[in-house]
Amino acid sequence: MARNKHPEETVNLILDVAFRLFMEKGYEHTSIQDIIDHLGGLSKGAIYHHFKSKEDILAAVTDRMTADSNEMLARIRDRSDMSGKEKLKILFKESINRPVQDDIFTAAPNFGKNPKLLFSLLTETMEESAPKYILPIIRQGIADGSIRTEYPEELAELITLTANVWMNPMIFDSTEEESYRKFMVFSQMLKGFGLDVVDKEMLDRLQELAAIYQKNK
Amino acid sequence: MARNKHPEETVNLILDVAFRLFMEKGYEHTSIQDIIDHLGGLSKGAIYHHFKSKEDILAAVTDRMTADSNEMLARIRDRSDMSGKEKLKILFKESINRPVQDDIFTAAPNFGKNPKLLFSLLTETMEESAPKYILPIIRQGIADGSIRTEYPEELAELITLTANVWMNPMIFDSTEEESYRKFMVFSQMLKGFGLDVVDKEMLDRLQELAAIYQKNK
Repeated sequence: MARNKHPEETVNLILDVAFRLFMEKGYEHTSIQDIIDHLGGLSKGAIYHHFKSKEDILAAVTDRMTADSNEMLARIRDRSDMSGKEKLKILFKESINRPVQDDIFTAAPNFGKNPKLLFSLLTETMEESAPKYILPIIRQGIADGSIRTEYPEELAELITLTANVWMNPMIFDSTEEESYRKFMVFSQMLKGFGLDVVDKEMLDRLQELAAIYQKNK
Repeated sequence: MARNKHPEETVNLILDVAFRLFMEKGYEHTSIQDIIDHLGGLSKGAIYHHFKSKEDILAAVTDRMTADSNEMLARIRDRSDMSGKEKLKILFKESINRPVQDDIFTAAPNFGKNPKLLFSLLTETMEESAPKYILPIIRQGIADGSIRTEYPEELAELITLTANVWMNPMIFDSTEEESYRKFMVFSQMLKGFGLDVVDKEMLDRLQELAAIYQKNK
């Protein structure tokens, strides 16, 4: 494969292959050479033109996994027609309803076999999503009186950790029934912070994703 | 080193060396041969007499890290002179006050470089500590009226994840100030479940551990 005129296509191809190999073989057992071998003739030089190292490829894989989601989060964060609490509610709803979630849960990656990828996603979520998207919404909610906490940074982290990690059926391998029960506890936890922002529609969707994962894992 | 009459000493020595190498080099970059090389002449046969594989050694390292803690948890769980809520309170207090915590926080392992070890500890905590120790205490609390929840399994998981993982200054690299703020949010979260079980003494100890970690990391 010659270096093409569309470098973003080359990058996407590299990331497609790398993601698949990381999931199949594990990050530690995938070499740059393995990735090249699955790229139909791309040279080692071409891959190093785009990425400094395997670690660099992993960071790009993680970034791409969260890029769509981050765009959606930024759009909600920057709306001017809603209170902080309303934004949190719509953010939960849109996050879980994204159609790409069906694809991800059907692919059913086994994070237990990929602790490196899981850790990379966990760090990205806690160090990027929480402060950049959830925190400004909580701050707005404090200012407009719709959210009550003295510790917005930490509440943003707690919500992110529980919603994105603990309630993710792929990470803790939850059934529909377990997802239901986690959702109920999550909902009670949020109410303790004055946040009445989850509803039956979100619960149904969470259980649907858990069912997709259980069927395909 | 000849095979000795005290196999538990050999096992402990293997685990000491393995733990140190896993932390220094990372699990994936430590081979069985590396461990042998640091054992002053123990044969490959001797190590395989005790452990089937490197994965097996990692499991034993994790088990040993949690064994003391689990004994303490079992002792509290099995007391008959306390309500469920009182047991949770003393359990938090004893967990954080264990003197070994000073050693662990002084050693200041970098879990970011050891996602495999972190994942192993996370799994152990969520699949062992939560159901075996926290859950029976919560069930007792429901029965004696001191804890209110319809979802004891999930509340046990949520408490374990937030207390052992999120509030652990080594895992999320928290300063004293951040530890204080996390503790306040954790405390508010517990109150939402009717659990008034943390106090100033625990907060002071958490900040002390965060300071030890920050100094030694």
